[in-house]
Amino acid sequence: MLQGHQSWVFVNRPVIQGAGAVGGPFEAEGALALDFDILHGDTWLGQDSFEKAEKKMLEEACEIAIGKAGLKKADIQFFLSGDLMNQIITSSFAARTLGCPYLGLFSACSTSMEGLALGASIINNNGGNYVLCGAASHNSTAEKQYRYPTEYGAQKPPTAQWTVTGAGAVVLSKEGDGPHVISATLGRVVDMGLSDPFNMGAAMAPAAADTLVAHFRDLQCSPNDYDLIATGDLGGVGYEIAKDLLSKHGFEMDERFVDCGMMIYTEKQPVFAGASGAGCSAVVTYGHILNRMKRGELNKVLIVATGALLSPISFQQNESIPCIAHAVAIENMLH
Amino acid sequence: MLQGHQSWVFVNRPVIQGAGAVGGPFEAEGALALDFDILHGDTWLGQDSFEKAEKKMLEEACEIAIGKAGLKKADIQFFLSGDLMNQIITSSFAARTLGCPYLGLFSACSTSMEGLALGASIINNNGGNYVLCGAASHNSTAEKQYRYPTEYGAQKPPTAQWTVTGAGAVVLSKEGDGPHVISATLGRVVDMGLSDPFNMGAAMAPAAADTLVAHFRDLQCSPNDYDLIATGDLGGVGYEIAKDLLSKHGFEMDERFVDCGMMIYTEKQPVFAGASGAGCSAVVTYGHILNRMKRGELNKVLIVATGALLSPISFQQNESIPCIAHAVAIENMLH
Repeated sequence: MLQGHQSWVFVNRPVIQGAGAVGGPFEAEGALALDFDILHGDTWLGQDSFEKAEKKMLEEACEIAIGKAGLKKADIQFFLSGDLMNQIITSSFAARTLGCPYLGLFSACSTSMEGLALGASIINNNGGNYVLCGAASHNSTAEKQYRYPTEYGAQKPPTAQWTVTGAGAVVLSKEGDGPHVISATLGRVVDMGLSDPFNMGAAMAPAAADTLVAHFRDLQCSPNDYDLIATGDLGGVGYEIAKDLLSKHGFEMDERFVDCGMMIYTEKQPVFAGASGAGCSAVVTYGHILNRMKRGELNKVLIVATGALLSPISFQQNESIPCIAHAVAIENMLH
Repeated sequence: MLQGHQSWVFVNRPVIQGAGAVGGPFEAEGALALDFDILHGDTWLGQDSFEKAEKKMLEEACEIAIGKAGLKKADIQFFLSGDLMNQIITSSFAARTLGCPYLGLFSACSTSMEGLALGASIINNNGGNYVLCGAASHNSTAEKQYRYPTEYGAQKPPTAQWTVTGAGAVVLSKEGDGPHVISATLGRVVDMGLSDPFNMGAAMAPAAADTLVAHFRDLQCSPNDYDLIATGDLGGVGYEIAKDLLSKHGFEMDERFVDCGMMIYTEKQPVFAGASGAGCSAVVTYGHILNRMKRGELNKVLIVATGALLSPISFQQNESIPCIAHAVAIENMLH
């Protein structure tokens, strides 16, 4: 399975048999609204806390993914999931509802692809028949936990990003109908000394470039081998830095290089440098990008989810922001 | 690799090539002091915050494990680790120091065995040559984050447990000298409605029993197949409940059924019902139990690390405590 220093090739080509993407009212006004399975008009989802709303979104995304795969909850062997909440309560409480064995993950906003890489490795190696991978975030839970409760009306600089209210999930299986997960490159922690939590795109850009360069080296491929390479949530600031860094490594990225954090909202929405959150790459990939693959517009894509591994405590203790990026390649079925 | 509903059998028998266990001053007064590689006299480890001290302990445990395996940092392909801190900063900052690809995990106090199971699956399936698995906790960081800063002198009921100040790590490899990781059973979330964070042993006991019963069913084995079955950190209260539950399932556990949380301290130490923390099962297993295996006192053991997946927020929102347990079987080399 190992190829090169830090990549896995999945020779048994695990299949994404079902996918679900759920969003909130702000996502419903966004650029990719048509790619969601459920869009809620109420950020509370009828719950009495934002945390419970986030959990409910993840449960819904999982249910949809399982349903689209033509399966039942009881068919799922392992649930791999993470989110931004302290002690990943969103995932753990969703795991309680699901009732299947559960592997909790934390890789901040890169959790979606950490889960997809590990899930694909389990399927690839006959460790399960059906594995469910999920990730979620909620704007109001993240603002409350990482920054200020939204009621305070705190101002933000233009480099800040807007946490997506959304949850995405996929069911992986050994065979079936759907695109294949063909390889993954696991990232290392890259920290260039930046410490501004309102400019995480700039902090994460070197990690995205590091993982992409490692991917091209390990898999002996180039950007031209992909119809789309999407970073997780660098936003406008981080995206340009990543492009520059890749250029310095000899990889000139063209319009096929995009960022999920720049795709999900419209230019009219006040999201500063773009979107972020563990749900960002999850909903854009498991909604929009998989839909484009299904329509035949894209055949082979590489998702490079990016994560800033800071905590409010590490920031208060004057630490810089350790960042990471995990890449997973997805390819349509051969016909 | 899959056997039964939720277990993996590692036919290639990944080897624990090196292990490290680091503890603090309270652990130095404990029952297993001789099994630590480093015992610190200062809970701060010379750092300016408890969080940084916890990170340093984990870095030390990793260094020792790598050194004992006869390797260098650069040989490690993947680092799998988790801890109790919000956003698992202990592990993520240690991963920055290590510089290798990193997979962040969260499963509360069962993180050690989630990591060992996933690490063994990577080695078993040729996903890497050397994988490092770690877990850590620190009494003062946990008290501050989950309960009250220790300076408050808050009182505790006798069902409470004492978070271990400790970090454990192992290097897994394809071949070499050391015991083998032979199978794992991944747990599902079990929640019997208990909500008292000062009685987590009682909350976790049903999860431990659930995973053990699943293990015996999936692997078609019984408690008698093991020289030792150690739960992670049920403490005295949870241990008795787990024993009762297992008896109801037809498994009568004898003196070979033990709990890491009841082993690490002496009876004179004021730890209420026993020890807990992500570092508890890590240091007891990677220190004491592996040492006993090396001396030939134990040949085949099953570690059932237990985790309470609550957060202060979920508790404040009147949620009960979702619990989980992951089991990993370790066997000496065949001679």
